Amino acid sequence: MNTTIVRHRLALLIIDMQNDFVLSGAPAFVYGAYDSIDSIRKLLDYYRLIKEPVFHVIREYRSDGSDVEITRYESFIKSRKIVVPGTDGCKIVEKLKPAEGEYVIIKNRFSAFMNTELDFMLRRLGITAIAICGTQFPNCIRATAFDAVSYGYNVTVIKDATSAASKQIADANITDIQNIGIPCITVDEYIKKMNI
Amino acid sequence: MNTTIVRHRLALLIIDMQNDFVLSGAPAFVYGAYDSIDSIRKLLDYYRLIKEPVFHVIREYRSDGSDVEITRYESFIKSRKIVVPGTDGCKIVEKLKPAEGEYVIIKNRFSAFMNTELDFMLRRLGITAIAICGTQFPNCIRATAFDAVSYGYNVTVIKDATSAASKQIADANITDIQNIGIPCITVDEYIKKMNI
Repeated sequence: MNTTIVRHRLALLIIDMQNDFVLSGAPAFVYGAYDSIDSIRKLLDYYRLIKEPVFHVIREYRSDGSDVEITRYESFIKSRKIVVPGTDGCKIVEKLKPAEGEYVIIKNRFSAFMNTELDFMLRRLGITAIAICGTQFPNCIRATAFDAVSYGYNVTVIKDATSAASKQIADANITDIQNIGIPCITVDEYIKKMNI
Repeated sequence: MNTTIVRHRLALLIIDMQNDFVLSGAPAFVYGAYDSIDSIRKLLDYYRLIKEPVFHVIREYRSDGSDVEITRYESFIKSRKIVVPGTDGCKIVEKLKPAEGEYVIIKNRFSAFMNTELDFMLRRLGITAIAICGTQFPNCIRATAFDAVSYGYNVTVIKDATSAASKQIADANITDIQNIGIPCITVDEYIKKMNI
């Protein structure tokens, strides 16, 4: 019997690392997001080195709320407008700004795949394996990881480059994500694995 | 037995009226698209008058071709780059430029619903009936009209505000579209019907 070694083509997905979610005091600040910037940057620099595609997936909401989720709609309209295009809060944090040739995908929902062109592009580029990081674990990271598996991608979640409101929430999500067969590993473990 | 009169909330979808498709000599020029501008404008003015939502649905392709359909990919890469963001060809024609408060939806495929936020927004706005116009009949107009029916919207195609490479192609598509129960009527007929 022949043994076939599948060589995946890789892509990195960095999710929702925008000022409104990351900076201390921001309206939708996620605890731990700011502290994950250096780990994400390490991963980003690795992808720039190996010249594989990087997707900066960001959330945007139109200012009239017409594309906001139902559970966030009331607070968005009444008091808390976040990630509106053109505002500083919507921008990707300075240290993770997309470089030329890197892709930006805009989403309105949790999963980076839901009603976006992401899957079209991954297919076109021949990508079969994706690494996911960013914020936050229970929502966009998890929804994207689950959809990626459902679409047939080989998925890795980079746990120290991903954040959540508390360590307890992060750990509970890592347990669930690992239980469907997605490795959750550190940046260093990931880079080491890639270089074998 | 009670009779219930359903009052639909309306929206107008203007599809792909961008310079690259509309202007004479443009790389992906659709015969008849330029001549439909005045009819589309009449419909647009009507929607501005009744203050119901307008969606300008446009096509965009990233310049590296990573989001182009498979059947157009080779020509896009080799010779014919169209509707790349930032180019004049990608812009909506002058007479149909979106006004403040009108929505712009970016799509990469034929149907305005495919992997876009359009359905999210129509639902949020409580829209149940849509009028479709733009270019061109066999591709984006038809794909959008069929998907709109599949999602449960009351659909009308405005036939003199829609174009195709020839009258024969337009007529063949009108036949098929009407045969699934979508009225294809003129701008004047549509406005008259709305005012009853």
